[in-house]
Amino acid sequence: MSFDVDAVRADFPILSRQVNKRPLVYLDSGASAQKPRQVIDAITRAYEGEYANVHRGLHFLSNLATDNYERVRAIIARFLNAPHEDEVIFTSGSTEGINLVSYGWAAPRLQAGDEIVLSVLEHHANIVPWHFLRERQGVVLKWVEPEPDGSLPAEKVLAAVGPRTRLIAVTHMSNVTGTIVDVGAIARGTAVPVLVDGSQAAVHMPVDLAALGVDFYCITGHKLYGPSGSGAMWIRRDRQAEMRPFMGGGDMIRTVTREAIDYTDPPLRFEAGTPGIVNQIGLGAALEYMMDLGMDNIAAHERGLRDYARERLRSLNWLQIQGDAPDKGAIFSMTMQGAHAHDLSTILDKRGIAVRAGSHCAMPLMEFFGITASARASFAMYNTKQEVDALVEGLTFCRELFA
Amino acid sequence: MSFDVDAVRADFPILSRQVNKRPLVYLDSGASAQKPRQVIDAITRAYEGEYANVHRGLHFLSNLATDNYERVRAIIARFLNAPHEDEVIFTSGSTEGINLVSYGWAAPRLQAGDEIVLSVLEHHANIVPWHFLRERQGVVLKWVEPEPDGSLPAEKVLAAVGPRTRLIAVTHMSNVTGTIVDVGAIARGTAVPVLVDGSQAAVHMPVDLAALGVDFYCITGHKLYGPSGSGAMWIRRDRQAEMRPFMGGGDMIRTVTREAIDYTDPPLRFEAGTPGIVNQIGLGAALEYMMDLGMDNIAAHERGLRDYARERLRSLNWLQIQGDAPDKGAIFSMTMQGAHAHDLSTILDKRGIAVRAGSHCAMPLMEFFGITASARASFAMYNTKQEVDALVEGLTFCRELFA
Repeated sequence: MSFDVDAVRADFPILSRQVNKRPLVYLDSGASAQKPRQVIDAITRAYEGEYANVHRGLHFLSNLATDNYERVRAIIARFLNAPHEDEVIFTSGSTEGINLVSYGWAAPRLQAGDEIVLSVLEHHANIVPWHFLRERQGVVLKWVEPEPDGSLPAEKVLAAVGPRTRLIAVTHMSNVTGTIVDVGAIARGTAVPVLVDGSQAAVHMPVDLAALGVDFYCITGHKLYGPSGSGAMWIRRDRQAEMRPFMGGGDMIRTVTREAIDYTDPPLRFEAGTPGIVNQIGLGAALEYMMDLGMDNIAAHERGLRDYARERLRSLNWLQIQGDAPDKGAIFSMTMQGAHAHDLSTILDKRGIAVRAGSHCAMPLMEFFGITASARASFAMYNTKQEVDALVEGLTFCRELFA
Repeated sequence: MSFDVDAVRADFPILSRQVNKRPLVYLDSGASAQKPRQVIDAITRAYEGEYANVHRGLHFLSNLATDNYERVRAIIARFLNAPHEDEVIFTSGSTEGINLVSYGWAAPRLQAGDEIVLSVLEHHANIVPWHFLRERQGVVLKWVEPEPDGSLPAEKVLAAVGPRTRLIAVTHMSNVTGTIVDVGAIARGTAVPVLVDGSQAAVHMPVDLAALGVDFYCITGHKLYGPSGSGAMWIRRDRQAEMRPFMGGGDMIRTVTREAIDYTDPPLRFEAGTPGIVNQIGLGAALEYMMDLGMDNIAAHERGLRDYARERLRSLNWLQIQGDAPDKGAIFSMTMQGAHAHDLSTILDKRGIAVRAGSHCAMPLMEFFGITASARASFAMYNTKQEVDALVEGLTFCRELFA
């Protein structure tokens, strides 16, 4: 099957709008992706005709909504090639997912002096929950630096593992540099549990959990062309069995009395309260959309964008690219001498080009590169080489302004 | 302004659909409410033309999405008459809100032997997070029973407060019996902090936080005619200052280094990660819709439904109503000798009438009434007296089947 980017673009209503009287060039999908018509329609259909609360409803609409909602668990399992559907726990996104593991698995198990190995590439979502354990119970964070080019060899992570290491928390793809980390090699190299932040990777390349051998893997729906507040944390069954509940409320209990509670089985044990029903239904539509296109096709299209963008951006000798590792997603962090990243973003925006400026929720990585902020162009399946050209023209215009 | 229920119904697409070849009679709004066109349109508009991630984006769409999202904080503050907008913390619903208080405020403060007073009316969302503190740190739960008619006098709650009481957690309106609790009188009667579960009350009556004098008040968007995964927890400034962060991630920090974190100010301190952007935008549309109708008008319409339903249901001498207190919302929990609640729901469903059967996430209250399940008819602003008649006819049909 060939990948037709024009057909894909036609599915995304927002891509035909103008910004500042210029066609929108949306290069901020790393922060959040736009949504195809199929996702928006799934949301509308649910609210217009198929909505009620899920689980134990017994009436028609409740059963219908439950079916529509619960089938997304199987879609996610298929998308990630997860061994078991009940290993998929619905979350509101990666942040909730990682906090679930921090509060539910790590906090009750880790003692003062126990170590968590994490990389300097991590997003704050995969840093702050572990800092909590440092602050609150004396857990030690051991940081692994990337190479100067932004790559993170598995051996380097494994070399940081010691007898007190209880968890490795690492991204599958950096949201700043696009670095792809060989998390499978990390998992194969140690018996220490591995948590993988798949927030970026799952958007851009096929993920095969059955092959990777990791323990925890999170995805976040809003980056996956899905709705706000959707997502999932995949947790291997044996790790689920080691966890205590995180949030308490309805649906995660079997019985509640004044004296005691009896929790229900996973995955519901870790899904308290009325869930994000329609959000997850929309996520299901997004993942089906991606799988219909084919993750290999999406990845190949984005490799083409990456190679083209890399070639063109590297040719700008007044532009610094942070962490341009050979194996990376189509994400580029850039700085320009004499121009603040915020200025770059603002000037590009006047030309309809949306890039993000700031620390990208990755301050330790900014510090590693010796900067406080960068402008980031992050590509997605709906972007084109013409948009790369527009970015290069825009940056060249900035250079002329600030030179 | 008069309240035109037909005009309201016309705004809710799902209400014109049929279920089992009969017009839908949706009496399950206590579990989750249907959504008006205005909310669905707000969601569509956001995704079709105004979407990007919020906060620090700098480009046009990000600034637009941030404005649309952040203005909902002011809408919620107005809806609840909250003294300060920054006391509104966005959540994915009441369950997350109450867990935020349990983990962020109570867990670090309460010692073994400290007491939490809560009522037997509570929903599991306002029970299980406190059971966690019992299980994990020896906090004592002190239960206050309602009167046999389901009412819960403020004096009875206050009588349970002792020198070790650190928190009172109580509903503003029972999701099973509709009981309205005078939470203002409770707050006035004690210096102990009061957490109010407003999940039901805020849907059916005006809430005036400036007058109530409580400390924590949660609302849940999906019951408020808003989207899945929307909601808010209102926390008084002085209580916010006593809290530590709950979930860790992006947006809730000022700086992150390898050694330390510095948290940003509330409310963002308690809102980790990419939030439910479009969910909250939809909630804003829902609350504006309600305020345009007028909460007093909605409450008056529902009082009419309640009085009419009460009169008709009481006339069925073979029907038991659990907790029919004088001051209550239009929510009726019912059992029938010889018929299981699930059978009632299933048979009513064949007639297009959606009622929920089960324990309604309120097992201690079920136990208080000596039952394990009931059928619950919960009314909302779009319901009519004709629908009360349909319910009564349906119940009469059940009676004939099972007698």
